[in-house]
Amino acid sequence: AKEVAKLLEMKAQLGGDEGKHKFVLKTPKGTRDYSPKQMAIRERVFNAIITCFKRHGAEVIDTPVFELKETLMGKYGEDSKLIYDLKDQGGELLSLRYDLTVPFARYLAMNKIINIKRYHIAKVYRRDNPAMTRGRYREFYQCDFDIAGHFDPMIPDAECLKIVHEILSDLQLGDFLIKVNDRRILDGMFAVCGVPDSKFRTICSSVDKLDKMPWEEVRSEMVGEKGLSPEAADRIGEYVQLHGGLDLIERLLQDPKLSQNKLAKEGLGDMKLLFEYLTLFGITGKISFDLSLARGLDYYTGVIFEAVLLQQENDHVEEPVSIGSVAGGGRYDGLVGMFDPKGRKVPCVGVSIGIERIFSILEQRVE
Amino acid sequence: AKEVAKLLEMKAQLGGDEGKHKFVLKTPKGTRDYSPKQMAIRERVFNAIITCFKRHGAEVIDTPVFELKETLMGKYGEDSKLIYDLKDQGGELLSLRYDLTVPFARYLAMNKIINIKRYHIAKVYRRDNPAMTRGRYREFYQCDFDIAGHFDPMIPDAECLKIVHEILSDLQLGDFLIKVNDRRILDGMFAVCGVPDSKFRTICSSVDKLDKMPWEEVRSEMVGEKGLSPEAADRIGEYVQLHGGLDLIERLLQDPKLSQNKLAKEGLGDMKLLFEYLTLFGITGKISFDLSLARGLDYYTGVIFEAVLLQQENDHVEEPVSIGSVAGGGRYDGLVGMFDPKGRKVPCVGVSIGIERIFSILEQRVE
Repeated sequence: AKEVAKLLEMKAQLGGDEGKHKFVLKTPKGTRDYSPKQMAIRERVFNAIITCFKRHGAEVIDTPVFELKETLMGKYGEDSKLIYDLKDQGGELLSLRYDLTVPFARYLAMNKIINIKRYHIAKVYRRDNPAMTRGRYREFYQCDFDIAGHFDPMIPDAECLKIVHEILSDLQLGDFLIKVNDRRILDGMFAVCGVPDSKFRTICSSVDKLDKMPWEEVRSEMVGEKGLSPEAADRIGEYVQLHGGLDLIERLLQDPKLSQNKLAKEGLGDMKLLFEYLTLFGITGKISFDLSLARGLDYYTGVIFEAVLLQQENDHVEEPVSIGSVAGGGRYDGLVGMFDPKGRKVPCVGVSIGIERIFSILEQRVE
Repeated sequence: AKEVAKLLEMKAQLGGDEGKHKFVLKTPKGTRDYSPKQMAIRERVFNAIITCFKRHGAEVIDTPVFELKETLMGKYGEDSKLIYDLKDQGGELLSLRYDLTVPFARYLAMNKIINIKRYHIAKVYRRDNPAMTRGRYREFYQCDFDIAGHFDPMIPDAECLKIVHEILSDLQLGDFLIKVNDRRILDGMFAVCGVPDSKFRTICSSVDKLDKMPWEEVRSEMVGEKGLSPEAADRIGEYVQLHGGLDLIERLLQDPKLSQNKLAKEGLGDMKLLFEYLTLFGITGKISFDLSLARGLDYYTGVIFEAVLLQQENDHVEEPVSIGSVAGGGRYDGLVGMFDPKGRKVPCVGVSIGIERIFSILEQRVE
């Protein structure tokens, strides 16, 4: 019996040893390592971006990879479900940062800073469905440039668009288009189309899906899931197909319904001023005022924008199509006030360059 | 009644609004933001370190901030309790990286790399008691340089020590000392002192506390908590007070007990070879073979080392005292094999520079 026990013990030990190597050898879902070759590409892209940010006078900051859970709560609307929480191991409840904008606003409020131009390059975390071949990851870099403080209207907003234009031109990624809209124009449009106030944000989320879904599907989400009247949806449908430049802005300023709405009028007035600056910069050729652009995040209050890379399909017969968004941003004048104990607001506008899709393209080119 | 209900509703709304600003405006415990000024210091330190790593021929890689929980399990011994876990939100169980060494070993096994010299600079996470004025954080940078692959004995080990010497000299942080020991010498010492095999790792953890606790306390932990015989503890006590150079190594090679132990003899032979290389490099002046150095982590298998900054107290009357560790490392020949499906080993040795304490010193100097 003693011998058998000994043998069994030895067998158990052997079994244990085999078990040791049974685990999966991989990085977590939606993440990846960077090899030295990939790091070389990454550093080249970072250098181009940092050079541009510094040329525009930005200082650099850094913040922790996680924040108090409550710092992130109530900032991202429907996207909040994508936040990574840390396990409660005693002490504070923490979440991984979802973007660099909310930590920046927290930083401004905490240090009572009312005027800064800063950049921040760091990884952010989203429990989204990854599509790694198209450069969509759960851990990915954002390169953010933001301007906080009071300035003449549309000056910092125009600078952000200029920066996107400079960086995308500099990186030679091919043709691109920067779509621009304004949350006030969207809200005014929702109001004149008959969307109840309480549904503004959720209908805005539906509009945001227009770059991935056809209008018919978005419409049925609005009417079916979100309980919007079919008439209101159809009125929205007419507006969101509009895109153009100064001419469209002028036309909408004369629109019998929109021109009666205070918010829309403000937004259109600022959009006109913005386009005048962009004309001076000579970059309107790649900028489109697009009423279908909504941006998912809750905290935007004014101008919003998104840059997409374009690819010519079908031998120049059709219009070039978007192969994905590489930058986005907008104005968020209320976010710092949400953190300030007395609710003091600091107007902010910023842009975030998404590096991963750019990496994918450059990596494929190297291969 | 209707009016009252309306008023109550308004009151509730106001209450809600006040509540909005009640949260604490701070970064999580043990973490901090970096202001532009602090970033300038940080970038200067990084540049000095990266320049040295590149001069020694290292390539750079990056890995995700989190790993599968099982990747980190069984690698850190008693320190495992300090690992940050992510909340189980469905899908894989994840933990924040605790160091850059285990992710590096996982990377090597995953990509079947058997030969590389690489560096990696990134934040790691430990739920330790922070002491932020002394530069101890829960989120902190490590700057790692590692050599994987088969080489002539002690060549890569000597290069790691040379790198620490170069970087600490380069940064002009004042006097420093690099303590060196070998896990095989420690294990041999434990064996000849009468420590049972099963207690090697836990007694090693106790020895590791000698830089923070006096011998009497460490001894009572060994005997009281860990059940070591007082005689064995006293024998250990005699060894761990020894430190010196080639002379001490020669003396221990003649030690009647240690010289009979195969492991200790191997370790001492390699230590002698290492010191011969360090003599050729001309850096033995700042290197001390120290039998009290143990290092907490489980995965070391050979040479271990740790660099401390020294400060002269009491007007040169006494010896300079350590004001804290700024670098550490060692050989871990078994770690990659723990990840390889067939257990194939890749010998590795590496060093990790801890930046935060260096930042603290440089920041205080700037002030």
